[in-house]
Amino acid sequence: MSSALPDPPAAALPPVRALVFDVFGTLVDWRGSIARETEALLHPLGLAVDGLRFADDWRARYQPAMQQVRSGRLPFSRLDVLHRMNLDQVLAAHGLDARVDEATRVALNLAWHRLDAWPDVAPGLRRLRERFLLAPCSNGNISLMVDLARRNGLPWDAILGAELARDYKPKPAVYLAAAAAFDLAPAEVMMVAAHGDDLVAAAAAGLRTAFVARPDEHGPGRGETRPAGPVDLAVPDLLALADRLGA
Amino acid sequence: MSSALPDPPAAALPPVRALVFDVFGTLVDWRGSIARETEALLHPLGLAVDGLRFADDWRARYQPAMQQVRSGRLPFSRLDVLHRMNLDQVLAAHGLDARVDEATRVALNLAWHRLDAWPDVAPGLRRLRERFLLAPCSNGNISLMVDLARRNGLPWDAILGAELARDYKPKPAVYLAAAAAFDLAPAEVMMVAAHGDDLVAAAAAGLRTAFVARPDEHGPGRGETRPAGPVDLAVPDLLALADRLGA
Repeated sequence: MSSALPDPPAAALPPVRALVFDVFGTLVDWRGSIARETEALLHPLGLAVDGLRFADDWRARYQPAMQQVRSGRLPFSRLDVLHRMNLDQVLAAHGLDARVDEATRVALNLAWHRLDAWPDVAPGLRRLRERFLLAPCSNGNISLMVDLARRNGLPWDAILGAELARDYKPKPAVYLAAAAAFDLAPAEVMMVAAHGDDLVAAAAAGLRTAFVARPDEHGPGRGETRPAGPVDLAVPDLLALADRLGA
Repeated sequence: MSSALPDPPAAALPPVRALVFDVFGTLVDWRGSIARETEALLHPLGLAVDGLRFADDWRARYQPAMQQVRSGRLPFSRLDVLHRMNLDQVLAAHGLDARVDEATRVALNLAWHRLDAWPDVAPGLRRLRERFLLAPCSNGNISLMVDLARRNGLPWDAILGAELARDYKPKPAVYLAAAAAFDLAPAEVMMVAAHGDDLVAAAAAGLRTAFVARPDEHGPGRGETRPAGPVDLAVPDLLALADRLGA
């Protein structure tokens, strides 16, 4: 186990002090949770909606809505506001516009505050917190992150991400604002995500990267199983991440 | 115990859902902690500094520095930056400018990240968290609040306050940004502080208010013992606040 020369970039890197996390898909099962909540709210109205299809259609409007903010066409709006705009569109597309009242729309939009974490997440974060500062670096707004943390027992040190930066990932400002809030250099912060594009953008902003596989995010076998580009670590779940980071 | 008419404003108020806290003085003993840290760092350099006097002099420059941001003369700068500017001034005023090196100044400035909480704070917050969302609404920056929380076991749901609002209390934007981050109306949020001016400003922004007495904040018998104006509650400590709020 010898090598003539240490790897120069690795040798120059400072230790990781904080981990920041993508949330939708990486930590929580948005698809199964939104399907469940949608059916629970719409079936009693006599609407035989397919929850999984509704969840996929709602989520499909996520990136285009944020792109309006990223491009400057829309001033910064919290994700709850974009979710509601998208919900109204999905209901219209499903021919349900006249059949879902305002109170139900409000309750359904808050389904994003009631997502369930993957089983490894709470125990993994508890171990990681012994050694690192932890925060979500999500496009979800602060109140949404707070509700998911309460529901799933996620021990955050702070809620960082889009609402602090007032812009959406993968814009570099969001990753850089998270590092700055912790008073750390970008290279002292590791972004943890199940999505290649998130990690590519975080690395370009100077952060370290860890890929967590969530192979069933978009349905059985329809999630990313390996990193799309170079990452510092690739793990099957947060318990394995804790193992790899000595936490 | 009857009354002809309910009190109209009180009857119109929604239930409190979140508590937000002033930190310096209200939750932590900045004076005793800064005195201890200052002596620990400067006495080994052969500087016979009186820690309590140094702490008072440093803190005396706090409001004037923030006023430069509030008035727009200085762009928003995190409190760590203002503390450092003030530290350099205090060292010069004490005739220590040539005798304290840069590394010691950096370490001394971080003394604000190592303040000790009053004894009722951690147990009081743990009780209150069973019933309310909790966050600091302090002029301290996020990393400072995170370090105080880790040191003292403060169970925050989020870190709100000046760095999120990019302005300093008692400007209304800081209180309003805290309520908005929790997705609550101002009247659903109660500001908890040991300082009358903070509570007057919070009430003017529409928040509920609780005064906590910290009679020794500025030295024995030199803290506020009663609210300077009308408040919703006045208590001797956070355990009494939990009692009063049924938490």
